Amino acid sequence: MTARLLATYRIAAAAADIDARARALATEQSVEMPLEAIGDKRVLGEVVARVESVRPAGEAFDVTLGIAASTTGDEASQLVNMLFGNCSLQPEVELRDVAFPAGYSAAFPGPASGIAGLRARLLAPQRALTCSALKPQGSPVEHLAALAGLFARAGIDVIKDDHGIANQACSPFAERVPAVQEAIARANRETGRQALYAPTFSGGPAALAEQARIARDCGVEMALVAPMLVGLPVFVEMRRQFGLRLLAHPAFAGAARIAPALLLGKLFRLFGADATIFPNHGGRFSYSRETCLAIARAARDPWEGLPACLPVPAGGMSVERVAEMRQGYGEDTMLLIGGGLLAAGDALPERAREFVARVAQPLAGTA
Amino acid sequence: MTARLLATYRIAAAAADIDARARALATEQSVEMPLEAIGDKRVLGEVVARVESVRPAGEAFDVTLGIAASTTGDEASQLVNMLFGNCSLQPEVELRDVAFPAGYSAAFPGPASGIAGLRARLLAPQRALTCSALKPQGSPVEHLAALAGLFARAGIDVIKDDHGIANQACSPFAERVPAVQEAIARANRETGRQALYAPTFSGGPAALAEQARIARDCGVEMALVAPMLVGLPVFVEMRRQFGLRLLAHPAFAGAARIAPALLLGKLFRLFGADATIFPNHGGRFSYSRETCLAIARAARDPWEGLPACLPVPAGGMSVERVAEMRQGYGEDTMLLIGGGLLAAGDALPERAREFVARVAQPLAGTA
Repeated sequence: MTARLLATYRIAAAAADIDARARALATEQSVEMPLEAIGDKRVLGEVVARVESVRPAGEAFDVTLGIAASTTGDEASQLVNMLFGNCSLQPEVELRDVAFPAGYSAAFPGPASGIAGLRARLLAPQRALTCSALKPQGSPVEHLAALAGLFARAGIDVIKDDHGIANQACSPFAERVPAVQEAIARANRETGRQALYAPTFSGGPAALAEQARIARDCGVEMALVAPMLVGLPVFVEMRRQFGLRLLAHPAFAGAARIAPALLLGKLFRLFGADATIFPNHGGRFSYSRETCLAIARAARDPWEGLPACLPVPAGGMSVERVAEMRQGYGEDTMLLIGGGLLAAGDALPERAREFVARVAQPLAGTA
Repeated sequence: MTARLLATYRIAAAAADIDARARALATEQSVEMPLEAIGDKRVLGEVVARVESVRPAGEAFDVTLGIAASTTGDEASQLVNMLFGNCSLQPEVELRDVAFPAGYSAAFPGPASGIAGLRARLLAPQRALTCSALKPQGSPVEHLAALAGLFARAGIDVIKDDHGIANQACSPFAERVPAVQEAIARANRETGRQALYAPTFSGGPAALAEQARIARDCGVEMALVAPMLVGLPVFVEMRRQFGLRLLAHPAFAGAARIAPALLLGKLFRLFGADATIFPNHGGRFSYSRETCLAIARAARDPWEGLPACLPVPAGGMSVERVAEMRQGYGEDTMLLIGGGLLAAGDALPERAREFVARVAQPLAGTA
């Protein structure tokens, strides 16, 4: 029997057309040629995608295709190609979810250690974790290093580069990363805490390999990387080769037509993210609370042997929302507040300490 | 003076809100923090993106931002991050076009030789070029090689793998590519023509490097690659290191919220595509004729020293449309017909020869 991925698409089409539209999608996402011209019975039976179900969904329809697992070649770029390659160009089609056949995930790395590993490393077995960002881009290295030291002394767990800080002339990776790492290490020695630095990795494979060398040489253990910017298969290779924890950033994910829970939750986890950043509801982005909770579930739900991936809600968050976010997402979460801390100006150290304190407080209604 | 990219976004917003929305976008796509909290005058003056203009566009507005070129680090992933990183997650924002400052393109490779180089290699200085695809995925190597030989003997210029044929167990790259290349070389010796094979490159950097080695070892000169699947900076590195002509495929480009002419035309060309495939109007995809002609213009228009990139309209095309497509796009075009040839069944050799003949015929109304 052919193992198949069950991919569900929401298609805007009239009821009279939906069966034909679903069959056309099955052809598009597999053999991409007229079935009448295929003489090979094995291809017709085991390679052509199959329409498994068609269900009404409001004004549209949810169509589930059975896509032969063998066509994905157990590889990230080809997996995504089979799921949403050509039909990404058809605006009436949205990819909603994928159920993988048993054992399929073993072909992919998954998170190196995920939530459990991060908690152990940060000596924080239970409480929600905290994260902030070094900003603004264009700042000299000294400013960013000083800010990192401040955040680490305030007790922030993970200090990441702003995703816009890459390898620009004003703070080149090779100068910035050792300086920031040293500032955090110094603060850690003072506080006895274990703050981690996650610098932005960007560029092509050769640049990324050089960045990994520089980062490891100075003791960095975590990388901030946008899988959609560097490429999904590159992300997988980073996971397999770099020996760094991976904090996934959603930049360029434009997940308007792939359900965010699938892309930022399930797929980024399958490909190896230890933690995944996503736009929290009520901030600068328009994701609904339901969408955000679905991302968190996709990142953490039991899935064969894959470690859980840490959900990291972000984007216009404030210290005032910490309790609500902890209640909504639970403690297996890392709260990321960047601009919301920096807006405090001279009161930044106090605001950062308040962020840390609010994450450590018992929630109202709990012991 | 700060060199700036002029990026134009179409934003769905009310007239009363658009100025504030435009300023928020400028912050989002640069420093991503409250401007009041930035003390560094150089950052405020030279790094924060600037709202250059706001113009009504139907129900929406076209907002042009001036984004400091220095923030892009002269690198593909960071360029796209600055253009459409975070705001790709804001569904009311669409990236319409980018004007680069003079000299900016020199930091990127552009096509190795583009249209002129392909024409010279194919001994076809003037007529439109032809392309077909090896299908279906799941076929054994012998079938694909035989099909390639048939296309080459019919006079097709470029014979590409179906974009769904990658490195799967049924026809692994290492077996398929030498066999197909040999079939085409044999046909070329019979016909005296110069058909080229473009196999699908997929996977992570290590896999791609191995595929390049295999391909070059057996004489392959061209690669089919989907920049959005392998990653844009990987595409740039392939262009710089592999010594292969690059035929870009739009899979996973989901260009609903980046204007297709910008992504598939301008950016893929800047990053090094010699030829770019896009869904033709009137086929299985819904791009308008205007959108398709805009892609072709973006691929070919004069642009500093960059060679022109060959537009390759495709997707449900037929031999009957050859004259209309030549008239619409002009002869600096490669017509790609895959399924439309294969649908002929036993009459495939005749259909393929007819395709080639129709491209060589004088157009009605021309000498």
